[in-house]
Amino acid sequence: MTSNLQQSMLDAIEVELKRQVGRLDQKRTALFHEMLTYHMGWTGEGAGSQAAGKRIRPLITLLSVASIENKQDKIDTGYNWLRAVSMAAAIELVHNFSLVHDDIQDNSELRRGRKTVWTKWGSPMAINVGDALFVIANQAVIDLKEKYPAEMVVRSTEILNNCCLDLTRGQYLDMSYEERTDLVMDDYWPMIGGKTSALLSACTQVGALLGYANEEKIELYRLFGYNLGLAFQVQDDILGIWGDETVTGKSAASDLVEGKNSLPVLYALEKNGEFAKRWKQGPIKQNEVSHVAALLDKEGGKVYAEKMSEELTQKALGYLQQANPQGEAGEAILGLANMLLKRKQ
Amino acid sequence: MTSNLQQSMLDAIEVELKRQVGRLDQKRTALFHEMLTYHMGWTGEGAGSQAAGKRIRPLITLLSVASIENKQDKIDTGYNWLRAVSMAAAIELVHNFSLVHDDIQDNSELRRGRKTVWTKWGSPMAINVGDALFVIANQAVIDLKEKYPAEMVVRSTEILNNCCLDLTRGQYLDMSYEERTDLVMDDYWPMIGGKTSALLSACTQVGALLGYANEEKIELYRLFGYNLGLAFQVQDDILGIWGDETVTGKSAASDLVEGKNSLPVLYALEKNGEFAKRWKQGPIKQNEVSHVAALLDKEGGKVYAEKMSEELTQKALGYLQQANPQGEAGEAILGLANMLLKRKQ
Repeated sequence: MTSNLQQSMLDAIEVELKRQVGRLDQKRTALFHEMLTYHMGWTGEGAGSQAAGKRIRPLITLLSVASIENKQDKIDTGYNWLRAVSMAAAIELVHNFSLVHDDIQDNSELRRGRKTVWTKWGSPMAINVGDALFVIANQAVIDLKEKYPAEMVVRSTEILNNCCLDLTRGQYLDMSYEERTDLVMDDYWPMIGGKTSALLSACTQVGALLGYANEEKIELYRLFGYNLGLAFQVQDDILGIWGDETVTGKSAASDLVEGKNSLPVLYALEKNGEFAKRWKQGPIKQNEVSHVAALLDKEGGKVYAEKMSEELTQKALGYLQQANPQGEAGEAILGLANMLLKRKQ
Repeated sequence: MTSNLQQSMLDAIEVELKRQVGRLDQKRTALFHEMLTYHMGWTGEGAGSQAAGKRIRPLITLLSVASIENKQDKIDTGYNWLRAVSMAAAIELVHNFSLVHDDIQDNSELRRGRKTVWTKWGSPMAINVGDALFVIANQAVIDLKEKYPAEMVVRSTEILNNCCLDLTRGQYLDMSYEERTDLVMDDYWPMIGGKTSALLSACTQVGALLGYANEEKIELYRLFGYNLGLAFQVQDDILGIWGDETVTGKSAASDLVEGKNSLPVLYALEKNGEFAKRWKQGPIKQNEVSHVAALLDKEGGKVYAEKMSEELTQKALGYLQQANPQGEAGEAILGLANMLLKRKQ
C-alpha cells in the first residue's frame, strides 16, 4: 500500500532520475541515452513500472530524510525531503550501474522479463552504459550543493563511494566463490555485506545525514540499514530454496540448481554430511531439487537460516526503534522494512 | 629529461597511488588487490616503470598546481603541490579505469607488452577491477578534504566526474563509429574531445583550481589542456599512419589496418576520391598499407592533419602563455607539452 507521501516521493524520484540521465540526451549520443532509458524501464519493449523496479532504495533514502525531527527548518512545508532527491537518484543509479555490469558478469540474458543491455547492444556498449550510470550517480550527489553546505556534499559523496567500494568487494567475493567448494559460513557475511547491505546502509545513513540528524542518530540509521540488508538477503536465500513460486516469481529451488552459495548451503557444507557430499559432486539437476532441498532441511540448513534471519531482523528493528524515526515517514520506514522481510506488521 | 622537481612529484604520485589502491589490500580481497597492482605495473610478470606508464597526467596536474603564483601560502616551502597529490592520483586512476574497460571493449590482449587484466583473469573480473579503480579515484578526490576547504573538494569532484561523462560519450562515439563508412570530419572532434582531451583538460583545470588560481586563470589552464589534448591526438593519428616505427613503437600504418577513424582518413573520406573508394570496400590488408598510405598522402590527408595539429598546438601554447605559469613548474609544463607534441622546444 503506497501512501500519498510515498507516492509523492516516488514521483519526485522518477522525475529526478530522468533529469539526471538526460545529461546524455544530445543529438550525437541519442542512442547511448536510449540504452540508459531502456535499462531504467522508461523506453523500449516492455517499458513501464514493472521494468523500472520498485525504487525501494531511493524511497528508503527519502523516508529517512523525512523521518528526522528537524530543528533546522523554521517552516516545515512537509516537502523538506525534496532537497535530497538528487541523492536518492544517485543511490538508484548506483544500484542500476551494478545491475548492468552484473548482468554481463553473470551472462544473464533477461532482467525483469526483458532483454538485458548487453543482450541488446553487446557487452562493450553495456560496460560503457554501466560506467555512465555510475558517473551520473556521482554528478547527482554533487547537485546537492544547491541545497546543502559543501561539507555535507563531501560527506555524502564519501558515503556513496565507500559503499561502492564495498559493492566491488562483494562482487569480487561472489565471483571468486563460484568455483570453490571449501566455503564456510565465515565466507558468507563479507560477501552479502558488500553485495546487499552496503547500499541499503548507505540509503539510511545518508538519509539521516541529509535530514540533519546528529552523529549518534546517523550511526543508528546506518546500523538499521546494514542489518536490514543482511536479514533481507538471508530471507531471500531461504525463499530461493523453499519459497512459494507463486510468491517469489522464480522457480523454487532455482538457487540450488544455480549452485548459489547461500547461507543454508554454507551451513550444511560446514556440517559436512550427506548434503555436502552431494554438493561437492557437481551441479544439482532439476529433477534432484526436491530431494536435495529436503536433505538440506533435514540437516538443519533451513532452521538455522530462519533463526539468523529472525535475529538480524530483530537487530535491525532494534536500531530503528533506538533511532526513533518521526511521523508518517517513520511509520513508512517500518512498513517498508517489514515488507522487505515479508513479515506481517 | 626529468628534473628534481618532476622526480619528486613522480615519487609522491607513486606513493599516493599505492596508498589509494591499498584500500583493497585486505586478507579476503588479496587477489582482487593484486589485479589492480598488476594493472598499475607494480606486480606480476613484467612489472616496472615501463609497465606503469609515464604518469604524464598526474604530473601535469601537479605542475599546474605548482605553477600558480600563490598568495595564500604565507611560507612557500617549495612543496605546496603536495597537498594536491590525492587529486593527481585520482586522475591517473580514472585513466587506468578507462584503460581496463577499453581493453575488454577492444578485445586487446596486450597493453605495454603485458597481458591485459581480462586476458589474465577474465572479463567479469576485469569489469570489476575497472569499477574499483573508478571508485577509488572518487575516494582519492574526497581525501582532498584534509587539505582544502569543502567547496574546493566539491568542485574538484565535479570537474573529475564531468570529465568522466565525456569519456563515456567519447567511448560511445568511438564504438558506434566502428561499423560506419559515412563519417565526416565533424564526427571526429566530439569523439577525440571525449576520449583524449577531456582528461587532459581536467588535469590542467583542477591543477589551477588547487593552486588557488582565479577563475580567469583556471579557464585558461582548462583551454590549454583541452587544445593540447586535441593537438596530441591529431599528432598521434599522423604517426599511426606515417610514423617511424622505431620511434612510435608500433608498426607504422597499423591504424590503417585496424580501420581507425583518424583525422587524415576522415578528411579523405569527405573528399570522396580513390582513397574513399578503397576504404569503403573493407579492411586494408598489410601488403596494401604503403600503397593506401601514399594514396591518402596524395589526396591531402597528411598535409591537412599536419596543418590542424600545428594550429591546435599554437592555440594550446597561446592559452598557456596567457595563463602565465610561474617558475620551474611553469617551464616544465611547457617542456612536457612540447614532448607530448614531439616538438623541439
